[in-house]
Amino acid sequence: MDDKYYMQKAMSEAEQAFLENEVPIGCVIVYKDEIIASTHNRKEQLNRATAHAEILAIEKSCLVLNDWRLDECTLYVTLEPCPMCAGAIYQSRIKRVVFGAFDPKGGAYGSNFDMNAVPRLNHYPSVTSGVLKDECSVLIKDFFRTKRQ
Amino acid sequence: MDDKYYMQKAMSEAEQAFLENEVPIGCVIVYKDEIIASTHNRKEQLNRATAHAEILAIEKSCLVLNDWRLDECTLYVTLEPCPMCAGAIYQSRIKRVVFGAFDPKGGAYGSNFDMNAVPRLNHYPSVTSGVLKDECSVLIKDFFRTKRQ
Repeated sequence: MDDKYYMQKAMSEAEQAFLENEVPIGCVIVYKDEIIASTHNRKEQLNRATAHAEILAIEKSCLVLNDWRLDECTLYVTLEPCPMCAGAIYQSRIKRVVFGAFDPKGGAYGSNFDMNAVPRLNHYPSVTSGVLKDECSVLIKDFFRTKRQ
Repeated sequence: MDDKYYMQKAMSEAEQAFLENEVPIGCVIVYKDEIIASTHNRKEQLNRATAHAEILAIEKSCLVLNDWRLDECTLYVTLEPCPMCAGAIYQSRIKRVVFGAFDPKGGAYGSNFDMNAVPRLNHYPSVTSGVLKDECSVLIKDFFRTKRQ
């Protein structure tokens, strides 16, 4: 399975978020070629500021592996992570991050600022950006278009 | 009640973390002069990378107020927040942050880097640093001293 395959899985989660009237962002975490967490943004329905797709996926993966270290995992997310989620990614020592659309306002892997350029952190994931970025971006734009109507 | 009063409450939580063999960091969140969340670091026992004192306190406060917006709250924590927690603080729009000891390695309010200097975020808390810093610091140093024995 390649990056596009897993990003499509993350996009399915984003579509589910859209149906639930949440900003449509989806995430999957892969461990040894297996999806161990598949989540989407649930901030509004849980009324929880931390309920971004990535945080929920990291927490699920810690539970599945019974370990706070996710150093053999790859995280796929449809939008560039925010600083909170990029912080959770390095705290959980996720090996690799793959994201879809860029987030010029909040993106923490180069668009707004770069968490990987912060010195003295105890872990830096490798980052692949822009996988299915147009498809991921359209979903988010469509969501905000419906909100403005 | 003043900042020292609430920091002492956060220190009691840090002491509890010490007894549970966790890095001793404690946190309380105050809303209208009332403590609505009182937590400590539980990363090892929950095996959850996100289970820092601040994240647990923010999640509890969202539950108590039934709102992801904590814009009338003050967060007290015994150690300068890491990037993940500083990210959760701005995501939850916490009005004010008060921390005790500085964290030269991981601190995200000026010691290692400054989350409040990242542009284009949708919220910036006011930050008061160094309240009971020596007392907060001693507890953490004692913990790592026992670990090295």
